[in-house]
Amino acid sequence: MSSISYRLAELAERFGGRVLGDADTTIHQVGTLDSASHGQISFLTNSRYRTQLAATRASAVIVSEADADATGLPRLVSPNPYACFAKVSALLNPSPAIEPGNHHSASIEESAEIAESTEIGANVVIGKHVKIGEHCVIMAGCVIGNGVVIGDHCRLYPNVTVYHGCVIGDRLIAHSGTVIGADGFGLAWDAGNWLKIPQIGRVIIGNDVEIGANTTIDRGALDDTVIGDDVKLDNQIQIAHNVRIGDHTAIAGCVGIAGSTTIGQYCCIGGSAGIIGHLNIADNVEISAFSLVSKSITESGSYTGIFPLSRKEEWRKTAAQLRHLDDFAHRIKQLEKQLAALQSQHNNEEKA
Amino acid sequence: MSSISYRLAELAERFGGRVLGDADTTIHQVGTLDSASHGQISFLTNSRYRTQLAATRASAVIVSEADADATGLPRLVSPNPYACFAKVSALLNPSPAIEPGNHHSASIEESAEIAESTEIGANVVIGKHVKIGEHCVIMAGCVIGNGVVIGDHCRLYPNVTVYHGCVIGDRLIAHSGTVIGADGFGLAWDAGNWLKIPQIGRVIIGNDVEIGANTTIDRGALDDTVIGDDVKLDNQIQIAHNVRIGDHTAIAGCVGIAGSTTIGQYCCIGGSAGIIGHLNIADNVEISAFSLVSKSITESGSYTGIFPLSRKEEWRKTAAQLRHLDDFAHRIKQLEKQLAALQSQHNNEEKA
Amino acid sequence: MSSISYRLAELAERFGGRVLGDADTTIHQVGTLDSASHGQISFLTNSRYRTQLAATRASAVIVSEADADATGLPRLVSPNPYACFAKVSALLNPSPAIEPGNHHSASIEESAEIAESTEIGANVVIGKHVKIGEHCVIMAGCVIGNGVVIGDHCRLYPNVTVYHGCVIGDRLIAHSGTVIGADGFGLAWDAGNWLKIPQIGRVIIGNDVEIGANTTIDRGALDDTVIGDDVKLDNQIQIAHNVRIGDHTAIAGCVGIAGSTTIGQYCCIGGSAGIIGHLNIADNVEISAFSLVSKSITESGSYTGIFPLSRKEEWRKTAAQLRHLDDFAHRIKQLEKQLAALQSQHNNEEKA
Repeated sequence: MSSISYRLAELAERFGGRVLGDADTTIHQVGTLDSASHGQISFLTNSRYRTQLAATRASAVIVSEADADATGLPRLVSPNPYACFAKVSALLNPSPAIEPGNHHSASIEESAEIAESTEIGANVVIGKHVKIGEHCVIMAGCVIGNGVVIGDHCRLYPNVTVYHGCVIGDRLIAHSGTVIGADGFGLAWDAGNWLKIPQIGRVIIGNDVEIGANTTIDRGALDDTVIGDDVKLDNQIQIAHNVRIGDHTAIAGCVGIAGSTTIGQYCCIGGSAGIIGHLNIADNVEISAFSLVSKSITESGSYTGIFPLSRKEEWRKTAAQLRHLDDFAHRIKQLEKQLAALQSQHNNEEKA
Repeated sequence: MSSISYRLAELAERFGGRVLGDADTTIHQVGTLDSASHGQISFLTNSRYRTQLAATRASAVIVSEADADATGLPRLVSPNPYACFAKVSALLNPSPAIEPGNHHSASIEESAEIAESTEIGANVVIGKHVKIGEHCVIMAGCVIGNGVVIGDHCRLYPNVTVYHGCVIGDRLIAHSGTVIGADGFGLAWDAGNWLKIPQIGRVIIGNDVEIGANTTIDRGALDDTVIGDDVKLDNQIQIAHNVRIGDHTAIAGCVGIAGSTTIGQYCCIGGSAGIIGHLNIADNVEISAFSLVSKSITESGSYTGIFPLSRKEEWRKTAAQLRHLDDFAHRIKQLEKQLAALQSQHNNEEKA
Repeated sequence: MSSISYRLAELAERFGGRVLGDADTTIHQVGTLDSASHGQISFLTNSRYRTQLAATRASAVIVSEADADATGLPRLVSPNPYACFAKVSALLNPSPAIEPGNHHSASIEESAEIAESTEIGANVVIGKHVKIGEHCVIMAGCVIGNGVVIGDHCRLYPNVTVYHGCVIGDRLIAHSGTVIGADGFGLAWDAGNWLKIPQIGRVIIGNDVEIGANTTIDRGALDDTVIGDDVKLDNQIQIAHNVRIGDHTAIAGCVGIAGSTTIGQYCCIGGSAGIIGHLNIADNVEISAFSLVSKSITESGSYTGIFPLSRKEEWRKTAAQLRHLDDFAHRIKQLEKQLAALQSQHNNEEKA
């Protein structure tokens, strides 16, 4: 249980919104409508869940104006309940305090420059000429290659690898197993064998980026791979060399983005989607989970390419007919022609 | 070569089944019908492979009653040959002996409680108040966060990361690169920027679970992510926050399961399949490889959603027609109407 | 900036091709047509990019015979400009020099045999009876299991894990997070629970293989998993137990290959594709990104199975009709029959 607590009135003061009900209600933690208990605050973002609201044992809730009267519980009425909830939760669940200094087992090159406010964990390995800013936490087992630059307030969870020369902005959160800056997949075919194209670009990461566990971002072949500000990447994503991702774009887990593709700002890409190489995706594009983008998208909007799920026996019938689609098209056209001919023949006879 | 050996009669005594042929045949290892050699035992689970049985150089085989007479080799007739084979193999190939104690290079917080029978490998990092049970092996480079609880007889292969607060049952096998308890992908949109939702739930893992290499299981946002007993996860799987997976469910490689989805017991999910968030999947559901589940499944059964593979030139024709399907539906309906009209007209004329 | 430089004439001498323009042009780095600057050499492999060629600020370019006259810049005319470019880049961007010897923090079993010319990084853990050849670099945090054999000139980037008993040829490049030799997903169903099949095979990797970040290659169940010579694997690939991949095959990111499948030589498999288990794929097969192979492929050629992307509202219509395909087939057939009947009736009446 969190040991911090705030009165509802204090939360309203910090994050906006008005209080209805007992403004002195003390809140020490957040919870879902279903599982919140005494001293916890929950939230309602969708009026569909009003029955859960009725049953909740939370001490208070955050609701929108539309749901302001949907409960008698002490409540914080907010124009954006979910964002308000995020802020309350962050207040009640601060990141663990940084313990500045280097763990005795860390291997740090002398030429590395690490701010004194930063914490370096057990077995961390830091290369030559690395620069790490203020208030960072580099957790156990991370390996930071030569010449890497990391900004302020970054947190690298255990076993993250950053290859040489990559540049990272402020407030990066990188989860375990993330690999930043491995070689892109660059090959030239040469008389029966593959030749490796040296990957001499870097990965450049903006501010306020979060990278999920086991996600990989390859370094550029010649130019850099670039991740914009406020880009949010879930787990197990593959970002190939020379990809550029615009600010505020969010990408769900298991997405693969092939080389040299540029993605705009404010895009949302669903889980396990794919984008082939050398494409341009406009701003404000939404790609459904499990969809492949194989052409550039020049207009914002929602795009999908999913084969619908069905029971296996139904699917077999559909799949079997799929290969006849071109034949169907032809036969429908023939039918239309023949029917028209018969109709006109018939009409002529009637007139006759 | 394994130095352990057993007579065929001993294997039958331990694991059930009856011996036909020389019960004193000595077995020291298992092998496939194709590659087994003298002293090895193989198995036949499907009568289709009888020709391989005829050619095998194995010293003995495990067969079902239906195939009891399909060979003259010494044989163990079992109601479940594959399970029997698994048991024989486990007997002949025991896990390497545990070497209890902590490697001198491990970094272990004083408040951690680790059973004396447990082995802690090189460079392992163990946080505050961690509890690890009896007969575990935590291999090199693993990082165990503060407050983690691990049961008995668990084996964590090298470079596994477990985040703070996660709870793991008995007999877990976690392969290298597994990340348990990283933050879920929780974001609130707030006036042009993403706000992080603190992920304060845990991952709770039951008994007898196996997790493949580089699989990720995110911690819950508010409540926990829960993996049931005897759940088997292959490599490169992504399990998002607040997912719940029922006992005995097996999931093949590269599957992605989005947040808050609940999967029943005894399900089998094929490789690279996907399940979107907030769904319920019933017990005993089978999902084909490469299929997306985008709606809840309330009935057990086999479900598929695969676009069939074809030669590229054929695929082009099919794909081009796909966008006309709605038009086809309309035109077929029109044709039916017009034809019916023409027929009735024709019939009326005939009567007339 | 690279401190090495060569005259254009020297490059032609080393790698073939003829020089047009100033053969004394000094080259110290490579770059794209768009971003190359003074002292850099670029390349043109496709005449479509001639406008970029016209605008480049590179000091020289590598072109094919067909484009030999497309620029007035100093140029190297080559029968294979991209391969020539790869060689020039490798010359100008050599791998960092090896610093032979073991980092003091490495944990190396006494029975391991490591060539003196090889570099072992910080926190590397090397098991019993491991053999590592000449001129290798095993970077920080790698864990090499008991009995592993590694050839000459291999580079393992940080945090690679190789399980016991695996055998690796010469010149392997393995990127961070790669896991070689984890257990395959082998389970037998036994009276309501899963039984683990011990995975006693190995992974055998040929010469000149590259493996991308966070890729996993499972050990064989009984026989070995085998990766041929000159096989190139991108990031986040999953290769299951007993898969065999032929020489010179290249596989893009996020591909999943299920157990016991054999893939031929010279194949190219696009990103996020999948291949189910127990199949045979012929030589020279090309699989499109995002396609599932669910049957063996006996003939070389290009194969695809992608559901085309469309705007969500269009997709809804298409998806809704997909389930009626079998019905469409039936109705088209009916229409053809009825129309034929009507036509013949009509013709008979005319004759009458």
